Amino acid sequence: MEQVADKPLTTTEVAALDAYWRAANYLSVGQIYLLRNALLTKPLQVEDIKPRLLGHWGTTPGLNMLYVHLNRVIKQRDLNMMYVIGPGHGGPAIAANTWLEGSYSETYPDVPRDEHGMNHLFRQFSFPGGIPSHVAPELPGSIHEGGELGYSLSHAYGAVLDNPDLVVACVIGDGEAETGPLAASWHSNKFIDPRTDGAVLPILHLNGYKIANPTVLARIGEDELTDLLQGYGYLPYLVAGDDPELVHQSLAATLARVLDEIADIQNEAKADPNAPRRAWPMIVLRTPKGWTGPHEVDGVLVEGTWRAHQVPLSGVRQSPEHLALLEEWMRSYRPEELFDETGTPVPQLLDQVPDGDRRMGSNPHANGGLLSRDLELPDLSAYAVDVPHPGSGPHEPTRVLGGYLRDVMQANKQERNFRVFGPDETASNRLGALYEVTGKAWNAAVLSTDEHLAVDGRVMEILSEHTCQGWLEGYLLTGRHGWFSCYEAFVHLVDSMVNQHAKWLKVTRKLAWRRPIPSLNYLLTSHVWQQDHNGFSHQDPGFIDHVVNKKAEVIRVYLPPDTNTLLATAAHCLASHDYINVIVAGKQPQASWLDQESAELHCARGLGVWSWASNDEGEPDVVMASAGDVPTLETLAAVSLLREHLPELKIRVVNVVDLMRLQPAAEHPHGLADAEYDALFTTDKPVIFAYHGYPWLIHRLTYRRTGHDNLHVRGYKEEGTTTTPFDMVVRNDLDRFHLAMDVIDRVPGLAQRAVGFRQWLIDQRARHHAYILEHGDDLPEVRDWHWPVQEGDPS
Amino acid sequence: MEQVADKPLTTTEVAALDAYWRAANYLSVGQIYLLRNALLTKPLQVEDIKPRLLGHWGTTPGLNMLYVHLNRVIKQRDLNMMYVIGPGHGGPAIAANTWLEGSYSETYPDVPRDEHGMNHLFRQFSFPGGIPSHVAPELPGSIHEGGELGYSLSHAYGAVLDNPDLVVACVIGDGEAETGPLAASWHSNKFIDPRTDGAVLPILHLNGYKIANPTVLARIGEDELTDLLQGYGYLPYLVAGDDPELVHQSLAATLARVLDEIADIQNEAKADPNAPRRAWPMIVLRTPKGWTGPHEVDGVLVEGTWRAHQVPLSGVRQSPEHLALLEEWMRSYRPEELFDETGTPVPQLLDQVPDGDRRMGSNPHANGGLLSRDLELPDLSAYAVDVPHPGSGPHEPTRVLGGYLRDVMQANKQERNFRVFGPDETASNRLGALYEVTGKAWNAAVLSTDEHLAVDGRVMEILSEHTCQGWLEGYLLTGRHGWFSCYEAFVHLVDSMVNQHAKWLKVTRKLAWRRPIPSLNYLLTSHVWQQDHNGFSHQDPGFIDHVVNKKAEVIRVYLPPDTNTLLATAAHCLASHDYINVIVAGKQPQASWLDQESAELHCARGLGVWSWASNDEGEPDVVMASAGDVPTLETLAAVSLLREHLPELKIRVVNVVDLMRLQPAAEHPHGLADAEYDALFTTDKPVIFAYHGYPWLIHRLTYRRTGHDNLHVRGYKEEGTTTTPFDMVVRNDLDRFHLAMDVIDRVPGLAQRAVGFRQWLIDQRARHHAYILEHGDDLPEVRDWHWPVQEGDPS
Repeated sequence: MEQVADKPLTTTEVAALDAYWRAANYLSVGQIYLLRNALLTKPLQVEDIKPRLLGHWGTTPGLNMLYVHLNRVIKQRDLNMMYVIGPGHGGPAIAANTWLEGSYSETYPDVPRDEHGMNHLFRQFSFPGGIPSHVAPELPGSIHEGGELGYSLSHAYGAVLDNPDLVVACVIGDGEAETGPLAASWHSNKFIDPRTDGAVLPILHLNGYKIANPTVLARIGEDELTDLLQGYGYLPYLVAGDDPELVHQSLAATLARVLDEIADIQNEAKADPNAPRRAWPMIVLRTPKGWTGPHEVDGVLVEGTWRAHQVPLSGVRQSPEHLALLEEWMRSYRPEELFDETGTPVPQLLDQVPDGDRRMGSNPHANGGLLSRDLELPDLSAYAVDVPHPGSGPHEPTRVLGGYLRDVMQANKQERNFRVFGPDETASNRLGALYEVTGKAWNAAVLSTDEHLAVDGRVMEILSEHTCQGWLEGYLLTGRHGWFSCYEAFVHLVDSMVNQHAKWLKVTRKLAWRRPIPSLNYLLTSHVWQQDHNGFSHQDPGFIDHVVNKKAEVIRVYLPPDTNTLLATAAHCLASHDYINVIVAGKQPQASWLDQESAELHCARGLGVWSWASNDEGEPDVVMASAGDVPTLETLAAVSLLREHLPELKIRVVNVVDLMRLQPAAEHPHGLADAEYDALFTTDKPVIFAYHGYPWLIHRLTYRRTGHDNLHVRGYKEEGTTTTPFDMVVRNDLDRFHLAMDVIDRVPGLAQRAVGFRQWLIDQRARHHAYILEHGDDLPEVRDWHWPVQEGDPS
Repeated sequence: MEQVADKPLTTTEVAALDAYWRAANYLSVGQIYLLRNALLTKPLQVEDIKPRLLGHWGTTPGLNMLYVHLNRVIKQRDLNMMYVIGPGHGGPAIAANTWLEGSYSETYPDVPRDEHGMNHLFRQFSFPGGIPSHVAPELPGSIHEGGELGYSLSHAYGAVLDNPDLVVACVIGDGEAETGPLAASWHSNKFIDPRTDGAVLPILHLNGYKIANPTVLARIGEDELTDLLQGYGYLPYLVAGDDPELVHQSLAATLARVLDEIADIQNEAKADPNAPRRAWPMIVLRTPKGWTGPHEVDGVLVEGTWRAHQVPLSGVRQSPEHLALLEEWMRSYRPEELFDETGTPVPQLLDQVPDGDRRMGSNPHANGGLLSRDLELPDLSAYAVDVPHPGSGPHEPTRVLGGYLRDVMQANKQERNFRVFGPDETASNRLGALYEVTGKAWNAAVLSTDEHLAVDGRVMEILSEHTCQGWLEGYLLTGRHGWFSCYEAFVHLVDSMVNQHAKWLKVTRKLAWRRPIPSLNYLLTSHVWQQDHNGFSHQDPGFIDHVVNKKAEVIRVYLPPDTNTLLATAAHCLASHDYINVIVAGKQPQASWLDQESAELHCARGLGVWSWASNDEGEPDVVMASAGDVPTLETLAAVSLLREHLPELKIRVVNVVDLMRLQPAAEHPHGLADAEYDALFTTDKPVIFAYHGYPWLIHRLTYRRTGHDNLHVRGYKEEGTTTTPFDMVVRNDLDRFHLAMDVIDRVPGLAQRAVGFRQWLIDQRARHHAYILEHGDDLPEVRDWHWPVQEGDPS
């Protein structure tokens, strides 16, 4: 590993940097421990100590050391720099530094940069009504909640895309580095264009320990570690030590070198667009965990071990010795040299603070909504398919959408604020039209047979859902727009990341200073009913259930039944902010039910009666509802069977695009008022609901509705394999014949009248099943089934 | 990268290996395309072709090449070897090879090793009623469903733990290698003891492409790739080429070398227990994607590109040229030399097949239930805590459990079939007693300050939930037992892995030849109500919702309310098979409600009335139910308030341990009969249900119950932060005061009678809230609350 031997700092400079570092460390310890007496103007008393000691000291001094040195180079070079903190449990460090630099007090005027404010800063940390213990949305300068480990590097790379003058210093914890998402995301450097994107400076903080164990990367030896990082495409520089003065020198020298190299890589690429990818510099910072904290406590080594991870002195309220040790520890930073008698940082510190928005706590990229520009969205009429009557087509919904996304890409190319993400599936998901106007980002070797690869491509594909999600989150959090297309089953890979993003959005909605950011848009295609070729492992519609557990105000779920409704939904989502929009739509050729105008109206309402399919003038005998493209097809096929065989039966057909409409208004902002729900679904008639996913979700959403006891839901019940499309619906009792039987069984008195028809339906299922088993394909009458156009249908 | 230049094979040996390879390739293509005419005894007709062409050719020839060479070294060295297939979409390869070696026909006698069987083999592949397109439980020799990419290596490492004579050849797809879980799992070699564990031979199959793109590892250059693999702790050997003869020689030479090295590492470790970790050998196999398939189709290059990923000739039924190309392709393998006129493989092929259980399709480790021995489980009475009356204690449930697990570990140490897994949290989750009898597996540098690290440690900790899960799955699938403790929120990281394991179990339950394997046991502790110190990012109880979507017969969810119920639940789960058991239990000191006998009875029943807390002789006015430790505490506290203030109110207290009991018997094997449910919960009385997780799950489980409309559930509603434990329940309206108010509001007529008490409850909430905000801690009266022992309580 490279080491830079220069000692570029004068004694005065070292002293200044060290003072700043001591101040940040002092403020960090204070947050973990103190309720009051922030300046230690009096000897510490038990009453000054928080009753519950909650926080993480171990990583904090390292984060502080980096912050002060990054400030220095920001000032020196007028850098546009953000700080992403992988070990985000080091929350005290960021609160301390943003307070020192003034960003904190500007964001929160009730926490001024004086003694009063310092007391407030201390007290509020990990305190009821205060701020959380981890780096969180509440902290200015952050786009990264550090509670769940593994996403710092992909967030950092997402942030620098299309921000050519931005440098993101990204601290990666050595514990975090053991996670899968982090291990994959090192390769992000193959997707960066040094001409049009900014730079990430990864800093692996090798403090040696996790909660209770040494870390792998700290114990594999420097040779293996060097190989590993070089293999990831980086040129690692080592800064190591426990003598602050030496570390100051080494870090300053190394930062100068790596920033020169970053500039060099960028300049070279600008000079020669065909310059091959170079290894980007990075830093390995090997300093003790809990550095400058209590070295030994109760006879046991703490500094430099895992025992420094959280609160090194835990018995401060019980043990006078611990209390004395704490006071000694805090006074070791010599606060009297750092803050004047009003608690304001002394000029020597303030001189080191970058100006205005150059402060990392004030960098507008970290409050992306400030910089965000809405997308130019082309008029949908150029893309809408012609639907002269219901059942027109077939059309391929996602292929049509691809044309629209292509033009969204084109219309915003100047602005460079839109990208499409997906794990190697953009073409498979039939969005390939995008390649007419942009390429796939790729900065590695290219062969003559390759297609659509481009260093500045705006489609981001890597076979890692985690990395795609992390990039997209980083891109959105810095104010840009994105679209994630994914196989429905495998979006579960990012369940936990979605949780954290949803939590981030929930919290930011209550922070007025955080401006809304563009929504996180998922297109889940190649869905459960269209994985008949890949089989059971690819069949899982449960992501909807997962997101619906999150706060209602941030979650939207759409199931457009055809091409024009997909277009309308997509346009709506691309214009929205602060949501997680989940769109589920198939890619296979399928009938269209609604023309553009009807589709837009239907999507605006979120659900509604399809009167052209209904024959319930007045009161229906049964409501046949559906949500999802395949269930809608099966429902309409069932309706046509029923209307043919039981013409006197009054059927109302209801289609649901916006799943959240089913919830009570009190539960979700999109929730339908009870009166409206009752008017659509009735309060006493059977409702046969064909649903795309696990059926119980519909019960969960509707259990408070008056008519709930009459609701009968069909959906995916985990019966799948490699088989035909129709066999898939049959296996899950979602097929037209079964839906028709459900109607017969649930409309009072109908079973007696329709004995023969019911038997015919059973026979049909058997006939299809036998045919499928013999021929390995569906009967043409299913494959080619068309909605029988009725007299008076919309045309 | 190392390359072995030897050419160890004679011409005859090359010819024999190549014949076997051609046979496997022939059988693979046949599976993808043919319905009949397997031996091509007649010219191919359109009628011979499947109507739907489903399968993946691209990776298959490489998998076949490896299989035949592994057979050779198995025979040569009498190896005990398994084959794990990362690119599991190459299902045809494994079906072909297990059929060739006879394993397939022994498992499925209706698919004999003759022409009839070959036709069956072809037809059934990706065909309704047949077998799936991916490597799946249906295939003998597999422990790894290859549909979702990323877990091959962690599965392989899990399989070799405690199997010192086993070698797992693990093929890693270069697409798969981009995933996070795979990227992390390379480091598994730091957790292997070469004396007591077997060896994994990773084979990175660098065929260059994913579905639609080149792979990262194929395009970073050989130097970076070498660095990367060395950095992961391996010594990579390159086998590259597209000339089969040269590849045969190179692969044979390289396999000899790497197997010698593996033996050498193992012998060295046995000779010197302190031998430092050495780099394990691995192979990089760089061969063309779709090797030996159609080189060009319709003027476009296919072989060696991403276009060979699935079905290279897709228009065979429509295009006579494609049909002719297919016939030419299949005949290029010269089937007439490979199979006799009865369709049986010729002796030259059969001579290459290893004997009996040495065949990879018959290795008993791949059908782990065959080898599985039940755990010795100590009697619980030595661990049960003394509960003279309800509310005794406090006890720390997981710490007590730790003592039990320690002795389970000890009792089965000879058998070496039990391990505990967790992401750096075993001690934090208070299971540290395990370290009295074993260490944490660790084969990297050790410092004098480290604790409990041991090369042969049986506690597996890495900060990667994915790797822990993968190891554990591999360990279970090969017939051993395990225990996974995890923070509740972050188990969502493995949502998708759990999906696949649940699917695997669902399918294997229908395969009589697959013997039951030990259950996958989760202990989710540090749960949502005990993350008041880490805050919102660590608060998510949604894993229960996630697993409940899977097939009822494999899912069990337990919420033991105290220490003795946790012990009883754990013992039950450790003795079970083929389930996914999710246990949620806290680690903080808490009251115990049940003595050992009552706890075991309660757990056996799964739920029941706690008569000692109830006063409803005859008919209750209200049922107060709970599931989970914290909700049970709050419920009992509410009951005591209500009984004190409203002594005439008849309260029935019901506690639920086994959540699946709430479902109807038709929905889940544990489901309570309606009559029993009604007897417990009544059909018409209000039920206030305090639940550990998202409240709607209880509605989902019970919506078919008669009394459902009277059910009112409180639970976590995504309101969290760093605050006090009691503030957490208050924020989510799960606190004792709110539960008592719920009773007042729902028992008919009570609101009028209890106006003053209701106001008192509101005042209490406000008083506590104010105290918490001021003092940062809960009022002692909450922290120290005890169930008031009643006259006649059990003692």
